[in-house]
Amino acid sequence: MAYKELKRACYEANLELNTLGLVIYTFGNVSAVDRDRGTFAIKPSGVAYDALRPEDIVIVDFDNQVVEGKLRPSSDTKTHAWLYRSWEGIGGIAHTHATYSVSWAQAQMDIPILGTTHADHLTEDVPCAPPMSDELISGNYEHNTGRQITDCFRERGLDYGEVPMVLLGNHGPFTWGDSAAKAVYHSKVLEEVARMAFLTRQINPGAPRLKEALIRKHYERKHGKSAYYGQ
Amino acid sequence: MAYKELKRACYEANLELNTLGLVIYTFGNVSAVDRDRGTFAIKPSGVAYDALRPEDIVIVDFDNQVVEGKLRPSSDTKTHAWLYRSWEGIGGIAHTHATYSVSWAQAQMDIPILGTTHADHLTEDVPCAPPMSDELISGNYEHNTGRQITDCFRERGLDYGEVPMVLLGNHGPFTWGDSAAKAVYHSKVLEEVARMAFLTRQINPGAPRLKEALIRKHYERKHGKSAYYGQ
Amino acid sequence: MAYKELKRACYEANLELNTLGLVIYTFGNVSAVDRDRGTFAIKPSGVAYDALRPEDIVIVDFDNQVVEGKLRPSSDTKTHAWLYRSWEGIGGIAHTHATYSVSWAQAQMDIPILGTTHADHLTEDVPCAPPMSDELISGNYEHNTGRQITDCFRERGLDYGEVPMVLLGNHGPFTWGDSAAKAVYHSKVLEEVARMAFLTRQINPGAPRLKEALIRKHYERKHGKSAYYGQ
Amino acid sequence: MAYKELKRACYEANLELNTLGLVIYTFGNVSAVDRDRGTFAIKPSGVAYDALRPEDIVIVDFDNQVVEGKLRPSSDTKTHAWLYRSWEGIGGIAHTHATYSVSWAQAQMDIPILGTTHADHLTEDVPCAPPMSDELISGNYEHNTGRQITDCFRERGLDYGEVPMVLLGNHGPFTWGDSAAKAVYHSKVLEEVARMAFLTRQINPGAPRLKEALIRKHYERKHGKSAYYGQ
Repeated sequence: MAYKELKRACYEANLELNTLGLVIYTFGNVSAVDRDRGTFAIKPSGVAYDALRPEDIVIVDFDNQVVEGKLRPSSDTKTHAWLYRSWEGIGGIAHTHATYSVSWAQAQMDIPILGTTHADHLTEDVPCAPPMSDELISGNYEHNTGRQITDCFRERGLDYGEVPMVLLGNHGPFTWGDSAAKAVYHSKVLEEVARMAFLTRQINPGAPRLKEALIRKHYERKHGKSAYYGQ
Repeated sequence: MAYKELKRACYEANLELNTLGLVIYTFGNVSAVDRDRGTFAIKPSGVAYDALRPEDIVIVDFDNQVVEGKLRPSSDTKTHAWLYRSWEGIGGIAHTHATYSVSWAQAQMDIPILGTTHADHLTEDVPCAPPMSDELISGNYEHNTGRQITDCFRERGLDYGEVPMVLLGNHGPFTWGDSAAKAVYHSKVLEEVARMAFLTRQINPGAPRLKEALIRKHYERKHGKSAYYGQ
Repeated sequence: MAYKELKRACYEANLELNTLGLVIYTFGNVSAVDRDRGTFAIKPSGVAYDALRPEDIVIVDFDNQVVEGKLRPSSDTKTHAWLYRSWEGIGGIAHTHATYSVSWAQAQMDIPILGTTHADHLTEDVPCAPPMSDELISGNYEHNTGRQITDCFRERGLDYGEVPMVLLGNHGPFTWGDSAAKAVYHSKVLEEVARMAFLTRQINPGAPRLKEALIRKHYERKHGKSAYYGQ
Repeated sequence: MAYKELKRACYEANLELNTLGLVIYTFGNVSAVDRDRGTFAIKPSGVAYDALRPEDIVIVDFDNQVVEGKLRPSSDTKTHAWLYRSWEGIGGIAHTHATYSVSWAQAQMDIPILGTTHADHLTEDVPCAPPMSDELISGNYEHNTGRQITDCFRERGLDYGEVPMVLLGNHGPFTWGDSAAKAVYHSKVLEEVARMAFLTRQINPGAPRLKEALIRKHYERKHGKSAYYGQ
């Protein structure tokens, strides 16, 4: 019963992926971390959303060992574990194969920051990490997927607190936040931003990046020290 | 209780944005004016649509002072106030981040008038006001957003009564009408017109503007002195 | 009570436009003819679908005179009247501003026959009648709209029985059939065919017209003398 | 009563096509085979999904003779029969006119493998069989449709067990699996993969095929001897 609340939060965040139209079948997974115990709750592998029950959620530690649960955890578990271990400030992670996000990932392109909808959430282009080398793929694949993400952030000097999302080249998006619900929120925002960027560049292939003053203004009014958005 | 009816109208118009698929999360706001008192009702900042109650609606005057309400009003309140002050004939204003409307705004392009669906509602291309100067952005941003809109209309010689919508470059649409419900109606029409214009130019990049005779005919039969559309 | 059944059929066909996602607000109308009496039932002008009741349907004769009903008939009534008068074999007519159909109309292009989905319903490209001359627009507009359609069919040698749909340049689609329900069916098929043709040409701008043998085969197996589709 | 269970499985799979948004009206059909008896259950021709009842499902043998049922079977029955006869390992077949799948078929192009969503299900581009010769079309059309599919697989050296889907040029998709439900699953996956491939190439016309190491890795982790996806 120790993990009842964590499982419930994880379960609801997984269902929300489905409600928001970000997944079909089993194409996605969400986890929620318990920092005090060094464990996280994650969706079991290959279980359909409409069959999922809170008690099916699996508890795993940062070494990928199952702590509680009868089902096999998501095949992407090692990616989640690596991200939790590397980035201490995150509380939840979401992974989907949402249409527009995946399409940018398959195009192997960053999503350019083209408007205030984007700047309300992050000040950078959404980074697209390159596909892994053959060596990393044939090795500890899901673990290396996590490393590919953190390597990308380190090389580009990005802050995971300010850039709560990434595209993995040819694969799809990973997003995070201070909770599982917030990670899912970022998956939805990313999908909408990806769709708008696609349409913008179709309408005007030369549409420029958003000017710096607007990027700062919109980000700061929601997330800055003197933020005045929300209650 | 003085504002009960106004709050209700504002509340319902805000929910309608959600019902019509024009917003996700808190990406939009609608206001409704009381011309006699010089105040308007507006959505509180950052409150989700499914959590919103009529009594949460905030009453503000044209100097942006809260007259009634416990919550902080929309971060875009000053834009609404400026528009109400400048344009005496409008009764409601809507702002969204609807997908196709935002995409044209991010493309920094007017939406060309390409068919009768557009001409049934306005006789001009939907104007896209340019992004503001850095000085205006770092100043009284939301107030200046309103000025950017009215400046655009003055410079182009547009009549807000005949052009009930605008795109703000890199941001998104603002629409208005004689009531909050009508402002929302214009947001929906704009989104559909924006989508059709996108598709038309994809199918035929050289698709011409609608001929003047059709523009006048369709606008006049709905809005002219001898209008014969509707009951 | 004489027209109770006709009004009901017309009412249900109008609601079906809404159910099928072919209209927003009041952007469409359907009529159903009574050939014996030389009258037809049509949607009243500007009435929202969710407010529409069977008794609101208006009965009009082929000279556009209201025979029964308290409301003003659709502003497009004269177009319907002309088509019923010109083409004796049709039982119902539908007009919408459906997104993809309108986009091809705004592009002023016929929808090419690119696959068997199209050929299952008609053997020709969907014709796009050109926008009217200024003289015709400033004259008896809705009547002339009907003439523009029948002129297009006569000049191209098209048979309204085999081509149950047309795009009116810069405006949108009109479809028909042996009943109001069938006219609405053709509006939905047209919208889907229009969407597929748009996507096909985006994927492969040089995608060729369907070969003649497939056109004949698919049309004949559903509509020919030896048709074997259906029960 | 002998076929009660088979009819039920076939009925439910047909309804699922509709639930998943893969068909409008009667634009699709699913069948389920009984290998022991050499028969299969298939949707009756031209019956709307919301009017379909389990007892309407028709039982046919591999020579296209109706074994049980009062209605005429799908006009595509001979295509199903040929595939069941040719490919002994399949248990169900689905055919749709789903939008994106048809659009690639109309473009007469294979769907390139561009990401892991695709590689999770098959290791090859989705093949597009060319339209048939006029001789085959005017002959035993639906039977020859089946042959066109198996010829395509033989000529390209494809394994129907590893490539559970095909586009028929200018027509649309056929998919299969070890059950009718799995065939429908593959129709949905195909539609999503087709949509992502369309968007990817719009964003980046030069987007490359997925690298071989990722193709193998993703396919093997779900379908290989050491698969570790699912329960």
